[in-house]
Amino acid sequence: MRTAGASILSVTPGCVEITAPVAEAFGQQQGFAHAGLTFALGDSAAGYAALSLLAEDEEVVTSEMKIHLLSPARGERLIARGLVVKPGKRLLVVRADVEIETPAGRRQVATLLGTMVPVPSQPPAG
Amino acid sequence: MRTAGASILSVTPGCVEITAPVAEAFGQQQGFAHAGLTFALGDSAAGYAALSLLAEDEEVVTSEMKIHLLSPARGERLIARGLVVKPGKRLLVVRADVEIETPAGRRQVATLLGTMVPVPSQPPAG
Amino acid sequence: MRTAGASILSVTPGCVEITAPVAEAFGQQQGFAHAGLTFALGDSAAGYAALSLLAEDEEVVTSEMKIHLLSPARGERLIARGLVVKPGKRLLVVRADVEIETPAGRRQVATLLGTMVPVPSQPPAG
Amino acid sequence: MRTAGASILSVTPGCVEITAPVAEAFGQQQGFAHAGLTFALGDSAAGYAALSLLAEDEEVVTSEMKIHLLSPARGERLIARGLVVKPGKRLLVVRADVEIETPAGRRQVATLLGTMVPVPSQPPAG
Repeated sequence: MRTAGASILSVTPGCVEITAPVAEAFGQQQGFAHAGLTFALGDSAAGYAALSLLAEDEEVVTSEMKIHLLSPARGERLIARGLVVKPGKRLLVVRADVEIETPAGRRQVATLLGTMVPVPSQPPAG
Repeated sequence: MRTAGASILSVTPGCVEITAPVAEAFGQQQGFAHAGLTFALGDSAAGYAALSLLAEDEEVVTSEMKIHLLSPARGERLIARGLVVKPGKRLLVVRADVEIETPAGRRQVATLLGTMVPVPSQPPAG
Repeated sequence: MRTAGASILSVTPGCVEITAPVAEAFGQQQGFAHAGLTFALGDSAAGYAALSLLAEDEEVVTSEMKIHLLSPARGERLIARGLVVKPGKRLLVVRADVEIETPAGRRQVATLLGTMVPVPSQPPAG
Repeated sequence: MRTAGASILSVTPGCVEITAPVAEAFGQQQGFAHAGLTFALGDSAAGYAALSLLAEDEEVVTSEMKIHLLSPARGERLIARGLVVKPGKRLLVVRADVEIETPAGRRQVATLLGTMVPVPSQPPAG
C-alpha cells in the first residue's frame, strides 16, 4: 500500500477503513481516478478486514473479487471501508464500499464483493 | 496506462494484447505484483478490446469486473489479452486473461470477466 | 415465479421482499435447497426491486449476477430481499440477501450482486 | 438435477457436459427459460467438472458463482459445458458455457465463472 500513499483510518474486528489521495500520478486518467486505484484500495480494505479476524501468523490473499464502478472518482481522496460478510477457516467472504471525498461531501464510487483465503505468514527476508 | 509503463502488443477487432513490467514500484509487494496491477492491466486489455469494436467518437467505461487471481505474479512482465465475449450497443461483455512472463516461460495468473459501457468521447481540454 | 411457489411479501420503491417454500420438489437435493432455487429467488427479488423504480411500460432482464452461498439452506422457506444499489437509465446495480426460516429463527444463506437492464414491456400474447 | 430433467452427455477429467429440456414447467416464463434454470444447469456442469478431478469420498459445494446472460434461452434444450480453470486442494476455479439448441442450430446463452469447494461426502441416510 506504500506506493499508493494509502493509510489506515480505523480498525475494529472485521471492519477496516483506509484512505488514499487521488492525486497520485498513476491513479489519474483524464481527470479521474483509474479503476485500478479504486479496485486496489477496496481490495486492500477488504483484505485488512479479513486479516483483523485471523491469528497473528496468518495472512490473506485475494482469491476472487468483484467490483461495480458506480460513479466517476473525481475528488481529493478515496476512502474504502472493508467488512467481513462471512468468516471461515478456509475462506472469508468480504465486501468493501469505496467513497470519494470532495469539497461538497462524500459520494460512493464503488462496491466490491469477494473471497479471501488465509495463508501462513511469510517470515521477513534477511 | 502511462504510469504503469504499459504498452500495446497487438490489436485485432475484438481482441487486444497489452503488457506492463512488474518491476514498477507500486506493483511490488513482498516480491510479487499486487492484485491492483494485475486487475488494472486485465481491465485495460478488456476495455481496449471493447473499444476496438466501437465508433471513433466513443469510449468505454468499466461497469463491473470480476477477477480470479490464480497464482502469484512473480516474474518480469505481465501480458494481458482482452476479448469481447458479446458485443452490444448498450453494453459489451468482455473477458481477459493475464499471464506472467518468467525466464522459464509464461504462466496464467488471472482471469477477468466483466461489462463495459460505451460512452461519448470527451473532447480534449483546452 | 409461479412454479417455484414464490410470493411477494413487501414492496417499497427500490426494495422488494419475496418468499418461497423450500419443500418444492425441484429445490431439494440431499435435504437442502439447491443453489438454483436460492439463485432464482435472489435474482427475482433483485429484479422486482429494479422494476419498482421503472415506468409501467418497462421490464428488466438480468444482465449479470453474482452469488455467494454462505450456508446450507436447510429449513422451511427462503426469504429474499432485493435492493437497488444504483439506479440508472441504461442499467441498474442491484443486490439481494437470501435468508432461510427455520423453527430456531432466520439465518442468511446467500448474498447476490448484479446488473439489471430495462427493456420495453412485451404486450401480452393473443 | 432429477427434477429439472437434466442428464449427462459426456465426462472427461475436468470437463463435463450436461443437458436439460427447456420445456419443464418451472423453467418457462413468457416463452423463454428463466435465468434460474440456466444458472442451475451451468452451476451443475461446473460442479460436475470439479467433481471429476476429486477423490471418490469428496463432493463439492458452490462457494460463489457469476453468470452473464448473453441472449434469451428460446429453444428446445439447454446444453452446459463445465470446465476446471484451476484445480486446487482448498478450492477450484471453474467456468461453464450454456447453449440453447434450436431447429436452426446452437447459440450461446450464458457464461459462468466461479469457485467450488471440496467437502467430505455425506454417507447415504439409513
